[in-house]
Amino acid sequence: MTRASPIYPADRVTLREVGLRDGLQIAKSLPSTEAKIAWLEAECAAGVGHYEVGSFLPATRFPQFADIDAMIASGERLDIHSAGLTLNERGAEAAMQSAIRELVCVVSATEEHSQANMRRSRDAAVDLVRNVAAMRDRNAPDKLVNAGIAMALGCSIAGNVDPEEVVRLTAACLDAGADIVGIADTVGYAGPKAVGALCARMEKLCGGQPFIIHLHDTRGMGVANAAAALDNGARVIDASLGGLGGCPFAPGATGNVVFEDIVFLSESMGFATGIILDRLKDARRIAEEAMPGEVFHGALHRAGPPKNANWQAKSLV
Amino acid sequence: MTRASPIYPADRVTLREVGLRDGLQIAKSLPSTEAKIAWLEAECAAGVGHYEVGSFLPATRFPQFADIDAMIASGERLDIHSAGLTLNERGAEAAMQSAIRELVCVVSATEEHSQANMRRSRDAAVDLVRNVAAMRDRNAPDKLVNAGIAMALGCSIAGNVDPEEVVRLTAACLDAGADIVGIADTVGYAGPKAVGALCARMEKLCGGQPFIIHLHDTRGMGVANAAAALDNGARVIDASLGGLGGCPFAPGATGNVVFEDIVFLSESMGFATGIILDRLKDARRIAEEAMPGEVFHGALHRAGPPKNANWQAKSLV
Repeated sequence: MTRASPIYPADRVTLREVGLRDGLQIAKSLPSTEAKIAWLEAECAAGVGHYEVGSFLPATRFPQFADIDAMIASGERLDIHSAGLTLNERGAEAAMQSAIRELVCVVSATEEHSQANMRRSRDAAVDLVRNVAAMRDRNAPDKLVNAGIAMALGCSIAGNVDPEEVVRLTAACLDAGADIVGIADTVGYAGPKAVGALCARMEKLCGGQPFIIHLHDTRGMGVANAAAALDNGARVIDASLGGLGGCPFAPGATGNVVFEDIVFLSESMGFATGIILDRLKDARRIAEEAMPGEVFHGALHRAGPPKNANWQAKSLV
Repeated sequence: MTRASPIYPADRVTLREVGLRDGLQIAKSLPSTEAKIAWLEAECAAGVGHYEVGSFLPATRFPQFADIDAMIASGERLDIHSAGLTLNERGAEAAMQSAIRELVCVVSATEEHSQANMRRSRDAAVDLVRNVAAMRDRNAPDKLVNAGIAMALGCSIAGNVDPEEVVRLTAACLDAGADIVGIADTVGYAGPKAVGALCARMEKLCGGQPFIIHLHDTRGMGVANAAAALDNGARVIDASLGGLGGCPFAPGATGNVVFEDIVFLSESMGFATGIILDRLKDARRIAEEAMPGEVFHGALHRAGPPKNANWQAKSLV
């Protein structure tokens, strides 16, 4: 039993809604705090229990996350599991003072991307994980520390990524005190073969403890990659309502893998999610109205679920 | 060695472009014959060798296929493998007189859909396959007879479909003289688990001979289903440029699985397709200009291939 296992049980699939964070990172039209809270409430009513609710970043540079305190408070009121991005010690300090339940640090899989994107080395990024975990141990032992490995399946700067480097960084993050590690196909370079192989390695490395797979649908492989991840031991999948998110490195591209489609995928593969697809429409309507300039993706939403009886998994497995 | 194996070799992946047939079935704006030929030429220049070029149906009811003779002639000039839908004996007669290389018959997986859609029983549909195969034997022994099992993975009328029924109908079609059988998720009901399981059954049944998987992306599972099919022995995949096709049973829904995305998927899984993704853009531009009312799908087209070196399979496997 680790700190993460009650939150992300190994015996079922957990979907993390990252639309309120990753989905707003480069959005053109930003929803109001009221709309974000209404979205959270609606998705919570549909049965979604895990969310990235924002980033602990300077409000001057990232106004879309200026209301993170309000989002966390709403999360507490709804009793959902809230996570927030903490990219430096200052953000971590703020997170410690808040009721956020999970702090998400980011480590790049390649030195090139680490330097270009975060102006620090990968070792320094792992050190931040260590510092955040130590702060957590001192101040807020109930909070989870999540280390996300960006560009884990291909890098827009370095190109190919050696899976052994991802394994090495995962081990380093766990050793530094992370409770859970996520592997991200940040720019949607991978196909299901690579995703499946890396997840199989991760499962072995994590020894039955959960790990997260974070996929972008940039090249249409998102659902196939999620299927390969589920086939190879992944039990926690990031997704965003309507596939919000885009890709800062591929203008006009599709974003995170579509939440609704991943619910359908999981159910079709026998993993009950406890999520009521029909109710996700309410959350989507709220988000669509609040973000008029944004393209919302997803085939399931357009077509609706099949009329046959057996698409839904029978029970939480 | 069967009649089908030189056309659809078991040791590599073949992608069939069905956009010129299935993609036009319910299209709102129909391309001119000149545009269709230009599309065919452009896709041929990209390395695509297998096409459904139209249907042998009454031109009065299906004007989009009135030019099938011109399409077949263009196919012969380009030396591609052309296929045409033949839904009755009259169509088969016309096909026999033409240079079409493959006749595609359709058998519904469920009695309900067979009666509703084709006004005949499944047995009568298998009888048509037998008659067409006999006509072929007498008149045109070089032509292939393809039997497509519609609604093989879920039926918009009957709901669930028993895989054993699909296996039984496949065996009946092969016994009736079909050279190759295709299984179609006509309404996009299936997830990858069901597709993989049925393909595994098909591979066993077909004894190493090729079979076709025909997928619709109605609920976003198309690429995941194609990956599962490839994982379970399928080596011939239907797809359409830009995912043209829609779904007559789900208005507004996405259509056939997107050709460009399936090329990327296949390559990423180690199956070289011999298709030059960049050149598919020419074909897409022609089709888009010729069909202004139509929505063209596909993430790969928007984002372009990854910048890393290893997304493309090394050789034809």
